[in-house]
Amino acid sequence: MALDPNCLFCKIIEGEIPADIVFRNENVVAFNDINPQAPTHVLLIPTVHTENIAGLAKISGTITAALFTAAAEIAEQRGLTGYRTVFNTGEAAGQSVFHAHMHLIGGRGLAWPPG
Amino acid sequence: MALDPNCLFCKIIEGEIPADIVFRNENVVAFNDINPQAPTHVLLIPTVHTENIAGLAKISGTITAALFTAAAEIAEQRGLTGYRTVFNTGEAAGQSVFHAHMHLIGGRGLAWPPG
Repeated sequence: MALDPNCLFCKIIEGEIPADIVFRNENVVAFNDINPQAPTHVLLIPTVHTENIAGLAKISGTITAALFTAAAEIAEQRGLTGYRTVFNTGEAAGQSVFHAHMHLIGGRGLAWPPG
Repeated sequence: MALDPNCLFCKIIEGEIPADIVFRNENVVAFNDINPQAPTHVLLIPTVHTENIAGLAKISGTITAALFTAAAEIAEQRGLTGYRTVFNTGEAAGQSVFHAHMHLIGGRGLAWPPG
């Protein structure tokens, strides 16, 4: 599947830009957020370039689901009893990199509302 | 696919308990949160009973993706320029109903971190 040579997250997938990678399989790469908001704050990205999660959902249910399966695996490895997964879609919602990415957050109390 | 007769959200799917339903198709039912945290705060649930999104991801990529496609459609109908989607997994993360559900939040500024 296609990557975008101008995309920061595609460069992380390709290993052109370093990241603290914590999980990788055929469909998902996960790495620690550089500005963590909790003891666990991992970004999970699909190994195909698409601007946001709505775009990913249109092209692959398998990869969309793989993000959640990977998140559950990371949470289990870390012994988290609960965790929150967040997608920001659009700049108005705080999205700053336009390659779909899930925030996996846990390891501390999580307030409501979520932002 | 199976519903659970003891589950609040399954009862909403079946029409046994009323809800302010804003979207429905074969895979997804969406309704306004009874304790809204933003001008748009919609819950989107799969029409199959499963405790959380990790469980849904294991049984159906199609339905997992359908939640995001439905969220995008609702956001577009409402003219949202950005929106946040959140899943809480486990009581420690604030999950209170154990039928997988997405919070779709938009229509106001969204702070970071997300809780």
